[in-house]
Amino acid sequence: MRAGSDLAAIRERKPLVHQITNYVVMNETANATLALGALPVMAHAIEEVEEMASVAGALVLNIGTLSEHWIEAMLLAAKSANVAGVPVVLDPVGAGATRLRTETAKRILDEAEIAVVRGNAAEVATLAGREAEIRGVESIGAADSGAELAKAAASALGCVASVTGPVDHVSDGARTIAVANGDALLGTVSGTGCMSTAITGCFLAVASTPLEAGAEALVAFGVAGEDAAVGAKGPGSFHVALYDALYNLDPATLDLRAKAEG
Amino acid sequence: MRAGSDLAAIRERKPLVHQITNYVVMNETANATLALGALPVMAHAIEEVEEMASVAGALVLNIGTLSEHWIEAMLLAAKSANVAGVPVVLDPVGAGATRLRTETAKRILDEAEIAVVRGNAAEVATLAGREAEIRGVESIGAADSGAELAKAAASALGCVASVTGPVDHVSDGARTIAVANGDALLGTVSGTGCMSTAITGCFLAVASTPLEAGAEALVAFGVAGEDAAVGAKGPGSFHVALYDALYNLDPATLDLRAKAEG
Amino acid sequence: MRAGSDLAAIRERKPLVHQITNYVVMNETANATLALGALPVMAHAIEEVEEMASVAGALVLNIGTLSEHWIEAMLLAAKSANVAGVPVVLDPVGAGATRLRTETAKRILDEAEIAVVRGNAAEVATLAGREAEIRGVESIGAADSGAELAKAAASALGCVASVTGPVDHVSDGARTIAVANGDALLGTVSGTGCMSTAITGCFLAVASTPLEAGAEALVAFGVAGEDAAVGAKGPGSFHVALYDALYNLDPATLDLRAKAEG
Repeated sequence: MRAGSDLAAIRERKPLVHQITNYVVMNETANATLALGALPVMAHAIEEVEEMASVAGALVLNIGTLSEHWIEAMLLAAKSANVAGVPVVLDPVGAGATRLRTETAKRILDEAEIAVVRGNAAEVATLAGREAEIRGVESIGAADSGAELAKAAASALGCVASVTGPVDHVSDGARTIAVANGDALLGTVSGTGCMSTAITGCFLAVASTPLEAGAEALVAFGVAGEDAAVGAKGPGSFHVALYDALYNLDPATLDLRAKAEG
Repeated sequence: MRAGSDLAAIRERKPLVHQITNYVVMNETANATLALGALPVMAHAIEEVEEMASVAGALVLNIGTLSEHWIEAMLLAAKSANVAGVPVVLDPVGAGATRLRTETAKRILDEAEIAVVRGNAAEVATLAGREAEIRGVESIGAADSGAELAKAAASALGCVASVTGPVDHVSDGARTIAVANGDALLGTVSGTGCMSTAITGCFLAVASTPLEAGAEALVAFGVAGEDAAVGAKGPGSFHVALYDALYNLDPATLDLRAKAEG
Repeated sequence: MRAGSDLAAIRERKPLVHQITNYVVMNETANATLALGALPVMAHAIEEVEEMASVAGALVLNIGTLSEHWIEAMLLAAKSANVAGVPVVLDPVGAGATRLRTETAKRILDEAEIAVVRGNAAEVATLAGREAEIRGVESIGAADSGAELAKAAASALGCVASVTGPVDHVSDGARTIAVANGDALLGTVSGTGCMSTAITGCFLAVASTPLEAGAEALVAFGVAGEDAAVGAKGPGSFHVALYDALYNLDPATLDLRAKAEG
């Protein structure tokens, strides 16, 4: 893990992070990406996604508000990214909540090469064929521990699994990293999971491996969450402070502040 | 009215509030729902709305940025909610401003059972066949007083009418409740009307009657608005403080702070 | 330039500013419009855009997240606005980044009468047939200076060109106004360019000429940015303060604070 130097690399190289994401969080993930130091671009038209994805540093797919043409666009973009060697992160928002979401996430995993799946325990468990319960897009519980689940999902899905929760776990099947950074207020703002996926995309554009990218992103986002919680009076002020904190993240101290093991 | 105990019930049960709403306010209504204590989910695909609506605690329909497939999705979701006994609140954003909006709102009211219509005076008057003037999505004036309009609309539409303005009026045709909580800054932030509709959905999931849900929601949102106005320097800081205030609403004092009559 | 009196006119007349814009910034441009003192309305359905545009004070087109039906809606709305004498501002977000965006912006310019094109240097240069480089939606560089580019683009496109950057340039081909108001933090928040376009729409509804509207809007937005930067700790707190600052802009001192030449 070299979260600090990879953050510095993001700020220096300003990778373009192409995001096909849901309507609810587009502004939020664009602003989180920009505050961290990368360049977000949102483009979902079937006519342009291949062109945009092929020149990006990373592609972020998020199924939070699906419909037919968006699914087609995600598949086209992912295949174009694969051909161009651009890493792809998938956020399977609400997998397990409806058949459309579960099947779409599985289809993307089947038809394209995904570097990292970043989701909550219930979403990842659904895709890995493990027991879990979801209410809407919120994980209510999963049979496995986070570490077990991340490892099993990485093996089952053939990519890095990044399972976020009170403690996050990122695994490539062989190695599993636990990240304990963050703050409970992250759970009170809609779209913080989606933001962590966007930030995973930023780190994928510069990191050595998808495993490190996944863990470094959660360290950076978690540390920003810790900073944002200082003085926050609730979800509104925390949300605002989160962008300030991402912008002010210090590469020199980031690894010292990481609560990562494994 | 038991606004305090119903707020406590929302926080304890965390009902899923399925929202098919407009692009402008999706993040805002999701965050308002979450800050209050319920679980928002946004889903608009024809392939999944029936499944999602049927397991929700309430369904919120908002016609603020319509298009063909979204209208179809709203009708499918509403009918599914009706079959499952899930209450539905409709926000007829811009009814009266274009034929599409007026006709779509009327069609939803005709084809599905709606528990509460929550709108401004001009929108509700348009649907109830009364005189009114609207500019875009802002009510410029209505011939009736708020209390008269809410009562007449409830009778005409066969559901609870919740008419917001400087003083809000909620009526089931027999009983009309006036709610005077709130702050003028609510009118300076886009989507606060839509937020009040989402919060009406949260209360519909737990309250005894749609009339009480409608009035309790406006008390809760209005009190949060009063709290948010303290120290606000304009619409930006007020908007942020509104989420903090919703999150920090105190069930123990909510009924004491209610300015409700009727 | 009469930025102060035109701002006062916006607040008095509250023009309806119809916006067909991208998903990322809809809430942000609606709130900026409302904070300034005008009334935003978002409507993109083919069935209603002509009706809405024809009664608006100005029409704002923004191609930031295109798809087929939205392009058709923009063309319909622009033609309806033209017939009704409603001025139109175009934001060619990402022109130069993909063929779809470049071609769509050109098509709108060809098929409708546009009063102002407001974009960054690379976007405007692309449309005017000059050399430029863009990464996603961020201008990386252009061969011409801002003043040269604005003048050349105005001549080539037959409308006012408003090119924003560290210093902004607005030209009708004959006269070019440089505006140096603003703050570097504007570049750290996604959608501030789109907001400046929406505010250009507000001023188009009241100003004497498109050239003045374009320059006055950038003065007003720039001064608000300067006010918002005071005390900001990063992009989050700056973004919030920007709405407060737009709301609190003082018509009496606006022209005194303008850093405009030409």
